[in-house]
Amino acid sequence: MVDKALGGAGLRGQVAGQTSICTVGTAGNGLHYRGYDIETLADKACFEEVAYLLLRGELPNEAELGAYKTKLKGMRKLPATLCEMLEKIPADAHPMDVLRTGCSALGNLEQEGDFSAQMDVSDRLLATFPGIINYWYRFSHDGVRIDTDSDCDSIGGHFLALLHGKAPSALFEKVMNVSLILYAEHEFNASTFTARVCASTLSDMHSCVTAAIGSLRGPLHGGANEMAMAMIEHWASEEEAVSRLNAMLEQKEKIMGFGHAIYRTKDPRNAVIKYWSKALARDFGDDRLYRVSEATEQFMWEKKQLFPNADFFHASAYHYMGIPTKLFTPIFVCSRVSGWTAHVMEQRANNRIIRPSAEYTGPDIREFVALENRA
Amino acid sequence: MVDKALGGAGLRGQVAGQTSICTVGTAGNGLHYRGYDIETLADKACFEEVAYLLLRGELPNEAELGAYKTKLKGMRKLPATLCEMLEKIPADAHPMDVLRTGCSALGNLEQEGDFSAQMDVSDRLLATFPGIINYWYRFSHDGVRIDTDSDCDSIGGHFLALLHGKAPSALFEKVMNVSLILYAEHEFNASTFTARVCASTLSDMHSCVTAAIGSLRGPLHGGANEMAMAMIEHWASEEEAVSRLNAMLEQKEKIMGFGHAIYRTKDPRNAVIKYWSKALARDFGDDRLYRVSEATEQFMWEKKQLFPNADFFHASAYHYMGIPTKLFTPIFVCSRVSGWTAHVMEQRANNRIIRPSAEYTGPDIREFVALENRA
Repeated sequence: MVDKALGGAGLRGQVAGQTSICTVGTAGNGLHYRGYDIETLADKACFEEVAYLLLRGELPNEAELGAYKTKLKGMRKLPATLCEMLEKIPADAHPMDVLRTGCSALGNLEQEGDFSAQMDVSDRLLATFPGIINYWYRFSHDGVRIDTDSDCDSIGGHFLALLHGKAPSALFEKVMNVSLILYAEHEFNASTFTARVCASTLSDMHSCVTAAIGSLRGPLHGGANEMAMAMIEHWASEEEAVSRLNAMLEQKEKIMGFGHAIYRTKDPRNAVIKYWSKALARDFGDDRLYRVSEATEQFMWEKKQLFPNADFFHASAYHYMGIPTKLFTPIFVCSRVSGWTAHVMEQRANNRIIRPSAEYTGPDIREFVALENRA
Repeated sequence: MVDKALGGAGLRGQVAGQTSICTVGTAGNGLHYRGYDIETLADKACFEEVAYLLLRGELPNEAELGAYKTKLKGMRKLPATLCEMLEKIPADAHPMDVLRTGCSALGNLEQEGDFSAQMDVSDRLLATFPGIINYWYRFSHDGVRIDTDSDCDSIGGHFLALLHGKAPSALFEKVMNVSLILYAEHEFNASTFTARVCASTLSDMHSCVTAAIGSLRGPLHGGANEMAMAMIEHWASEEEAVSRLNAMLEQKEKIMGFGHAIYRTKDPRNAVIKYWSKALARDFGDDRLYRVSEATEQFMWEKKQLFPNADFFHASAYHYMGIPTKLFTPIFVCSRVSGWTAHVMEQRANNRIIRPSAEYTGPDIREFVALENRA
């Protein structure tokens, strides 16, 4: 299935390796992590349980989950040197650049060495990423040096506690859990594939995850929820939404948060986050953003037969929880690092260096002309 | 040509896109940058000329080359904040982690923004990498804060001037030029492919290059010259080399710097760097390392029909120029960044997000078991 105008481009439909971690669209519009349906996981599990599943292959029992949460909680503290480096990064930096740099810097201070402790390195990244992004954010924006430990039991709650300086409500913590589960893993998407190409040289975990963050930063990959937020935040009503959307379609502008490269009729993650966005709107006491989002969903289906993907209702959900728009994609990283590191370990276990070929379209072999004789 | 035990693994022989930058092995054992033979380029051009060719598609004339060298020279100074961050990185860090972090950090301080200045961003990376690695190296190892400007006209000479605190000899500068040319570009190798996958999400240049550095760090990709050096440096004579090599082969140990994934009978870069290694040995006044290297080459051909790749005689050449072994792979980065950024620009010009498929080998769809019911 190679695009004729663009030989081999995108590797779409080409098998680039094996995985036992995830299937996307194999069962219709389904998404399964190690055989478990995403809607059930988001409903019944917590994020740490899902991270355990992705990284270790099976769901933990009660004792294992308890031990795992305790382990992760004990790994949150950032090295003082890393905090000093984060303090050097200005407030107008791109938050994904900050997280990419923070992950890379951590690799200098805590080298992986041989791969015997790879599971601990993965857990350490899971545990520290909320601290890295919020330490920078709070220092550069509020002038506050936060303690990157918090009493919060879950990674999602911990993120909000660091950001807001207080423990989140039970509802917020639940929605963060759901959100982190939905974003955790998605087979050979571009950032995960980046991590695997890097891993195939037998490079260290920090290199692989740093590379993946760089790919997720791209507007064709992460960031759709931020762009959806930028689109909907100023719309006062359903009527305004419809009139703005009509104008955008006339201008052939892209409507962010709709459609998907793999799913054809729906994204299984949408119904889940939409449900929780509605609950948050009720809790917030002003459901404008939710209503505008729902009107957009309806409009896009009627006009373009396009459905919202995982990102669209994330915009309103995150907003209701008081999360600044620029931190939306970093939360994606705090989640997806579980999938990335699972893929790195899988690549290492059965590795061949990833080195494809190219179709050459350049000049034929030509004679060198001495510098002084060039036109 | 898919390995049966490893479906799709390594994408070996699969076309992953188009390029007009380079061919590897298309004409026998040849390597051509935009149609020009590597041996001629290494003989007759300087590295800036080759970087110009890779990035702009054509060789510069005298006026263009002069302007380009002046531009690069004017871009060498590091932001003070970057220097402060580099000072935080300890002396025992992996130099490739330092360079990866330095590149990533620079992306916070000098964001690319839209892609209209992508050529300037590429040139800036070319100009600053010698400064980034040597600033850290000299500060962490010697306690010296170097000025990252130097009077040296070439990037290769500039690297040595920063490292040694004095202008290099004409011979050293020539060999650095040759070395940087040989390492500049190699089609869809793993680090370049990493950069292209990252670029395919339309991420920024710093993300792409940071990701590529992470891949080059892996022992299956960069670093072979460092490992070759570690192997040969203690061998006192040709006789000792042969006896050690025999022992290594008996132990089935891998001999670093031999063979290649693409070339079948020789690596065209080997004869070039071997010639200059010999010249350096003569200049140095002690040719032990060169003789030991030559004996190793002869032994490996007779015993295993394996030929040295670009890395093997680089070990002795770099050593004769007084370069610490741990900086060998960072020099590779200072060169290959020209190829990487050329590929990023090419990917951007005709882009489709790189998102391959995977062969699923995991569990079938299974029922979720509530936490309290798990064994």
